[in-house]
Amino acid sequence: MEVQAFIEHCMQVVGTRASHARSLAHVLLEGDLRGHYSHGLNRMDVYVTEIRAGICARDGEPVVEKESAATALVNGKNLLGPVVGNYCMSLAVKKAQDMGVGWVVAHGSNHFGIAAYYSMQALKENMIGMAYTNTSPLVVPTRAKEGTLGTNPISVAAPAMDGDSFVLDMATSAVALGKVEIHERNGVSIPEGWGCDSGGRVSTEPKAVLSGGGLVPLGGNETTGSHKGYGLSLMVEVFCGMLAGAQYSKHIRTWRVTDRMADLGQCFVAVNPEHFAPGFNDRMSHLLSLHRNLEPVDPGMPVMAAGDPERKHMQTCQELGGIPYYLSVVKHMNEFASTLGVRPLLPTHRHMQ
Amino acid sequence: MEVQAFIEHCMQVVGTRASHARSLAHVLLEGDLRGHYSHGLNRMDVYVTEIRAGICARDGEPVVEKESAATALVNGKNLLGPVVGNYCMSLAVKKAQDMGVGWVVAHGSNHFGIAAYYSMQALKENMIGMAYTNTSPLVVPTRAKEGTLGTNPISVAAPAMDGDSFVLDMATSAVALGKVEIHERNGVSIPEGWGCDSGGRVSTEPKAVLSGGGLVPLGGNETTGSHKGYGLSLMVEVFCGMLAGAQYSKHIRTWRVTDRMADLGQCFVAVNPEHFAPGFNDRMSHLLSLHRNLEPVDPGMPVMAAGDPERKHMQTCQELGGIPYYLSVVKHMNEFASTLGVRPLLPTHRHMQ
Repeated sequence: MEVQAFIEHCMQVVGTRASHARSLAHVLLEGDLRGHYSHGLNRMDVYVTEIRAGICARDGEPVVEKESAATALVNGKNLLGPVVGNYCMSLAVKKAQDMGVGWVVAHGSNHFGIAAYYSMQALKENMIGMAYTNTSPLVVPTRAKEGTLGTNPISVAAPAMDGDSFVLDMATSAVALGKVEIHERNGVSIPEGWGCDSGGRVSTEPKAVLSGGGLVPLGGNETTGSHKGYGLSLMVEVFCGMLAGAQYSKHIRTWRVTDRMADLGQCFVAVNPEHFAPGFNDRMSHLLSLHRNLEPVDPGMPVMAAGDPERKHMQTCQELGGIPYYLSVVKHMNEFASTLGVRPLLPTHRHMQ
Repeated sequence: MEVQAFIEHCMQVVGTRASHARSLAHVLLEGDLRGHYSHGLNRMDVYVTEIRAGICARDGEPVVEKESAATALVNGKNLLGPVVGNYCMSLAVKKAQDMGVGWVVAHGSNHFGIAAYYSMQALKENMIGMAYTNTSPLVVPTRAKEGTLGTNPISVAAPAMDGDSFVLDMATSAVALGKVEIHERNGVSIPEGWGCDSGGRVSTEPKAVLSGGGLVPLGGNETTGSHKGYGLSLMVEVFCGMLAGAQYSKHIRTWRVTDRMADLGQCFVAVNPEHFAPGFNDRMSHLLSLHRNLEPVDPGMPVMAAGDPERKHMQTCQELGGIPYYLSVVKHMNEFASTLGVRPLLPTHRHMQ
């Protein structure tokens, strides 16, 4: 596929090992394919810049520093996030094969794209997969003024029958930063419960959130449970920065800053249903269909299960014969690629206007 | 302590094995001590009624049905939730001692009180503990009209230095049902983002939520991320009903119905930081103090970490020399106890008016 080759090429001209460039291109493409454009091609320049600046390793292998039959602590050796993530998730699945559970934690990692890319790897072995990562501070804890936590995502995937699955992949903030940025670009206000200003007060003004303010945890404000979203974000830090001995919370470098390595902490878990009650996949299918078939409030808005919106986007891509991109993104990446001497992507009828 | 003995006595006169009655009394008391009165003495009558109706077992032992060095599937034998919970959590901790992680799942269980009671047991061994349970349907999935999910709590506890800890214990709904009931009793409306009416529409009318409507998932509505709370609730079902082969989702009997056993699914996890990066407790203490010392929006409302509100309530109890109860609760339980021929609790100056 042309976008895959384009990303690989851009990464390779700055010195990234070919197989690592391929891993990165694959997870970015998967982000786009699942409709999470904020974690796809759109971010390629950040990875290239980090490799070029020498703050992310071009080559090497993750190393296991400590291990039991069911756990491992991995040093990501400052390699690209997908290289570390693929290594750790495959290790977690291997451990769960024998032991029923595998719990693998990495320090020295970098941004790994969409978390579901890793949790879903367990589905191929008919296991539950989980992936967590800490990220740069953007989210303001309940009652505070200052952003000290990342959007710290939680992803849990579980297999049902016939290739069907449950795939949760959520930031522990109410929304992702990208949503606020889009509202700013369009000059419209944001709903209450997305962000706050620099004084920690609820704001519907995108600019206030983006400059000096921050995102708020899932739940919006304390009355409607933002302390729970804040607690979930800290839970992700417990699994990642705390267990891994990586950077954490406000010590993580700001997004797009290239003066030091990220040293992110990440956590990958596999649980093998074979070690528990028989009939797991049947029950999963029933749980999913029970919810998908609920009578909706609005007949045009069917009840979905986690992973269904992404499934729908993938179907659209299949019908179109490719991933529809915004021309502005393609144009931006082509301009970036030209500075590297990489041949541009050709806009096609599939790219969105 | 008199409340402990009172609950034990009420449970024993209906035939509960003494040690099981003691386990139940202890978790209910701990609920009250931590300020979660909805999960304390206030619920004693439900447990007594279930034992008396014969839908919860008076005596017996949980049984391991399947086991690896790191996992177990337990049959709770329809025993009281705390009996099953204590058994499973202790098994998870034992497994994590050797393997770094222990993942234990139970079917055939009953309501177990506050989830943090189990996750916190891991703290004594300087481990991370987790507890999850499915519960009776009350929560209406995003876009739906009908409640198919319980408040399905998540609890994660992690040890810091000098006995300090992070203790997350949250329903995956925006609020607990008890909060809506209190507003109804006081004749005041509830904030937007707590519940919906029988048509699945946001409602600020407690009566509409309590009769035919339901609670909404954490996030409130789809714009502010209720699909995430809904997804977390399904995640708890994956860990509990799905892995355990227990009842799940809308098949779980309604709260206070006594015509059949509950067969709840529950999940208990222990993770041993010794198997990961050194310095875990130091990092935890730093993460907690970093957040507690953030400048608050309102100087009278300090920034807290998960578990701090409960810690504050426990301090108050210590200062008072006991747990302050509402006289109405004491009166109600004394009336109930008199039907069992159990000597009443004596209201003291410590009971709240």
